[in-house]
Order: sequence, then C-alpha cells, then structure tokens
Amino acid sequence: MNKYWSDLVKHLKPYEPGEQIHVDGILKLNTNENPFGPSPRVLTAIEIQLGDQLRLYPPPSSSSLKQSIANYYGLKKEQVFLGNGSDEVLAHIFNGLLKKRLPILFPDITYSFYPVFCQLFDIKFEEIALKDDLSIDLTDYEVPNGGIIFPNPNAPTGRLLGISELERLLQNNENSVVVIDEAYIDFGGQSAVSLIPNNPNLIVSQTMSKSRSMAGMRIGFALGSAGLIEGLERVKNSFNSYPLGHLQIAAGIAAMEDHDYFRDVCKRVIMNREDLSSELKQLGFTVVPSAGNFLLVSHSALSAHKIYKQLKVNGIIVRYFDKSRLDTFVRITVGTSDQNVQLVAVLKKILRG
Amino acid sequence: MNKYWSDLVKHLKPYEPGEQIHVDGILKLNTNENPFGPSPRVLTAIEIQLGDQLRLYPPPSSSSLKQSIANYYGLKKEQVFLGNGSDEVLAHIFNGLLKKRLPILFPDITYSFYPVFCQLFDIKFEEIALKDDLSIDLTDYEVPNGGIIFPNPNAPTGRLLGISELERLLQNNENSVVVIDEAYIDFGGQSAVSLIPNNPNLIVSQTMSKSRSMAGMRIGFALGSAGLIEGLERVKNSFNSYPLGHLQIAAGIAAMEDHDYFRDVCKRVIMNREDLSSELKQLGFTVVPSAGNFLLVSHSALSAHKIYKQLKVNGIIVRYFDKSRLDTFVRITVGTSDQNVQLVAVLKKILRG
Repeated sequence: MNKYWSDLVKHLKPYEPGEQIHVDGILKLNTNENPFGPSPRVLTAIEIQLGDQLRLYPPPSSSSLKQSIANYYGLKKEQVFLGNGSDEVLAHIFNGLLKKRLPILFPDITYSFYPVFCQLFDIKFEEIALKDDLSIDLTDYEVPNGGIIFPNPNAPTGRLLGISELERLLQNNENSVVVIDEAYIDFGGQSAVSLIPNNPNLIVSQTMSKSRSMAGMRIGFALGSAGLIEGLERVKNSFNSYPLGHLQIAAGIAAMEDHDYFRDVCKRVIMNREDLSSELKQLGFTVVPSAGNFLLVSHSALSAHKIYKQLKVNGIIVRYFDKSRLDTFVRITVGTSDQNVQLVAVLKKILRG
Repeated sequence: MNKYWSDLVKHLKPYEPGEQIHVDGILKLNTNENPFGPSPRVLTAIEIQLGDQLRLYPPPSSSSLKQSIANYYGLKKEQVFLGNGSDEVLAHIFNGLLKKRLPILFPDITYSFYPVFCQLFDIKFEEIALKDDLSIDLTDYEVPNGGIIFPNPNAPTGRLLGISELERLLQNNENSVVVIDEAYIDFGGQSAVSLIPNNPNLIVSQTMSKSRSMAGMRIGFALGSAGLIEGLERVKNSFNSYPLGHLQIAAGIAAMEDHDYFRDVCKRVIMNREDLSSELKQLGFTVVPSAGNFLLVSHSALSAHKIYKQLKVNGIIVRYFDKSRLDTFVRITVGTSDQNVQLVAVLKKILRG
C-alpha cells in the first residue's frame, strides 16, 4: 500500500493470467494458445512494414483492418471495433456498455477477468450458477439486468450454446446489452454474428490470439450494430487513440484474408481435441464436452491439484483454478498430435503412481 | 446517442488527434513524428521474432524491456512501467495516481488529452494559465491539489523548465503525485529521472514515439519509485494483462540499446530545429523558444488559420488549434533539412500573397 495510490488502486485485486513460462523443453498447455503458428502470409505482411514508416503514427481508426474483418463477416466497417487484444476490447465494453443502474449477469464459472473489470469500473454484478453439468441455462438470465456477458463456448468449461438459444435470450432481453465473448468460437461453434442485423443489443467479441494463432500480436475485436460500436469508439478515443500499431494492422489483415490456412488450423485443432478427449476418457478421465481448444478434465483416482503438480514436475504446464466447483478439474490446452502423445504418456505414468 | 450507452459514454468528448493523412507527396508536419526512421537494429530485432512463436502470449510484465529501460536510466526494473504508447501509460496514471479528493492541476495550454482523461475517470481539475510568454510558472502550482501534471518541454509551446525548478516543486508538494510528461525531453531538455531517488511522489512519463522514431509501434513508459509503479501495475493488470506484444518488446529493447543511433537522430533534429527557427524568424515569424521537435509560430501579416489552410493547399500539413490563446499560432513539426527547405519555400510564397 502506498499513500499516493488512488482509492481505486487500494482496493483492486488484479486479474492473474496463466503462468508464462518460456523454458526450452517445457510443454506449455496452460493458456490456450494455438499449437500452430500464424499464417506465413502474416509473417510476410509484417516484414513488408519494416522500414522508416514505423516512425509514423498508425491510422487511429485502423480502417483497413476493420474493412477486412467486416468483409469476412459480411458486415460494414462501422460495425467493427478494434483493440489491443480482446481484454482491452472487453474493458471498453464493460465501461461503455455494461455500466448501468442494475447489476450485470455472468456465470459463476467463466472468464475470471469479468469480475476484475467490474471492480475496475465500479459495476455491480451477479454471478449465475452453472448447472451441475457445468452448462449455462440461459433462462436463468431472463431477469432484470444491466447487461449480460458470457463466453460461447464458455471458458474454462468448453461448453457450447446453440444459436437459437442465443437468439431467444436476445429477444427476451431487449433493454440491455448482451455480450457474447467468442474467443473460442472458431473451434467448432456457430458465431452469433448472424444475429447482429436483427439485434441492436448484441455485441460479439473475438480475438486473434486463439484461432488466428497470434496471442503474441495483441489483436482483438468486437462486432455489433453501428450504434454500439460508436459508443465503444468514444471510450477508446478517450483512452488511447492508437491501440494498434502498423504491424498489428498488417498482421490482422493477412490473418483475416488467408482463409485456407485458417480453416486448416482450426480443423487440425478440432481433430486433435477429439483425439485427446478419447484418449483421456480411456485413461478414466471425465472430460467436459468442449467446443474450445482446451479440455476441462477430472479424474476420480487423483485430485486435480495433484495432477497439475505432477504434470509440472514432468515438464508439462496445465491450468489449475483454486476456486470452488473448479478445483476438481484441470484445464488442458489442446496441442499438436506429438504434444498430445507426450501428455498422455506422462498422465499414464502419473496414474500408475 | 444510443440507448445502450453507459452514462459515461453519453457525456464523453473524445480526444482528437492530428490528422493522419498518408498520401504520396503530402508533407506531414502535424503530429510531431520523427523525420528519421527507427534504428536499423530495431528492424532486425523485429525480424528475428517473426515465426511460430507469435502464437504465444508475450510475458505479461515485459521484464526484459523494463530491464533495458532501467539500465539506460540507472534504475531498477521495478521502477519502470510499460504501456501501449504513452497515452495508455498516462491513462493508467490518471486513474491510479491522480484520482483524489482535491482537483489536479495542469496548464491551460498543454497536451489536450489531459482533460479527456479527467472526464473518462471523473477526476476534478483546474487549469493554471500560462504566463503571457506561454511559460509555466511553477510557483502557481504551489496550492493544495490532488496531483500535478505537465509536459516538459510543454506541448504545444515547446517551452522547457529547468531541473532545479522541478526539484523545488516536488519538495514543496510532498503530499500528491507530480507527473512530468517527458515525451519531448530528448530533444534538448534535462530529464527529471535524476530526481526520482529523492522524490517518492515523482512520475516521469516517456514515449518511444518521438526521439526513438517509433510512433507506429506504440511503446510508452513511466519511471518512478517502486511504490508508485506498483500502483500502476495494479491498474494495468485489472485492464489488460498483455499491452505489449513480442514485436514491441524486441523493438523497444533494440531502440534503448542503440545509443549511437539515438544520439545522432536527436542531434540532427535539434540542428534542424535551430536552422528552421532562424529561417522562420527571417521571414518575420514569431517563434516560441522550443526544446521539442516542433515550433509554435505566428506571423503578424497572416492569421494562423490562413497559414494552416494555405500550407495545406500546397501539400504541407501542420497543426492548427482552434482554442483561445492558441489560435494565433500554428505548430510545425521539425522535418529533415530537405523538408524544411520545402516548407520555407512554400511559406515565402504564401507570405508574398
């Protein structure tokens, strides 16, 4: 504690991201990064930008990247908001669209940054308990609220909601904003982007950190009606005019335009997830059905914390959450086939004791 | 206006950055970019990063870049805070260290993002009028306050304060934070970093957009006592864990370590500024003494707005501020020798009428 801190700082409990251990030989399956690198076209696009022009400010609205995202989704560029990773996008959404008189709603087991944003922006919230099978029941959200946010598929469960359920929620909740955080949607879900034209209260947030393999580039975006996006632009332009540099803009455009590479990477991740899921079940794991690039698993013979620690000893990092209802699980990022073979071998060894 | 916006958004008046016109043949002297590109070592450092590892999150604390900035200034890495451009750094400073019961103080003519941050974070402020010669008199700031912030040299005036004046202010203002925004300090001023060890209430903010020629990379930083920096980290980690990507970290380190290139670029900008200043005076301009990479100038024969418009017609963009006391000036970024020759030739033509 420091006497110069604002009252806000004194009470903040910051978000804690997964460990970022970059040591040779460590297998990092804890932060849901894509096991495959970005499109070669991304690397070329960045390389082309390397020159004297880095001395210049980037275009503050990053229109060219907005246009390329809009093209991909069949929207207008005025329906696209950009940020320095989807966490920044979410931060502006909380401040600009979810700070209301009534509390906002989100699941009790979900992305743990949501309550941190609420604290930062002084937003009241209520956590809605997941069902026993860790699924979201959207009828639980049909109560007066200042806004609703959840990931689809949810994280860290991986459970997916269908588009018709989302549509019903949007139509029964016309007076506040519904944010569908689609960080993992490309690994097997159907995007709610198709619901944007008929639902002026819908914001879909996405990231290039997962399916586009660019966690290291920091590019996130949100899609919605032009009115909602304009609100986000106003907040962003009161905070930082230029959240994306030249290299991020070029990389983002290349990633959005290389459809073949993108489809191929997503397909491989999905295949690997299904393979890994079968193998883990054969080892006696309970595997929550996942539409993400990760699996939430538990085992009756060994506590989650022990699995986490034993894997770490063996050079494999997965995510353990010290939180009620979640502390019986570990979350494992889906790796390459080789990495999954390595993981399964180590798990076998651990289970043998 | 949109019914889904938070009350905050409804009342925000966002910051308006200078026009970003990137058209061939246009001479852009309006946003104080460096006329010289970044160090060749920066470009190489970025190139080395281009590969599969961009799929991974960057280290959230960017320790390696912190260490390299700390080394440069003779500080510890715990005394360095990093952000996605100095605007983001300033935003966190306002929220984390300047939001207090009493109003904060800054000059009436200064970086126009300050009042926008105050609006965003609901911070009370008082503007202190510059003297008639557009200088800051720091004794005006020795009144009860919730914090003090000003650029040194000030922007858009270019006027510089000396280190002993700053020291006196810090010592007479022990109960609140003093932020010295040194975006332009490398073009001829003495940094207040040397005052950090004796003044736990001092924050110095800097940017790599100006003297390090990387406006397009978005790297800013703040320096201060470890206690103040920890406060900023808490805000940052409640907003966005990873504001800097791999390429920014690598570029920043290379820029901090290429001392020769940095010194050479700053020397050339200073020389060009002095040359341009003499030439403008010969054309009858009044030139405010500047320690930045820009000149604030006026002319008795032609209004500032006319100069701005006439230059634009001739393909040269400078900055005009439609604000009382400033609207008699234009601000001109110092360019290369060739660019300055071109500017002076056009100004001669305009003045001939």
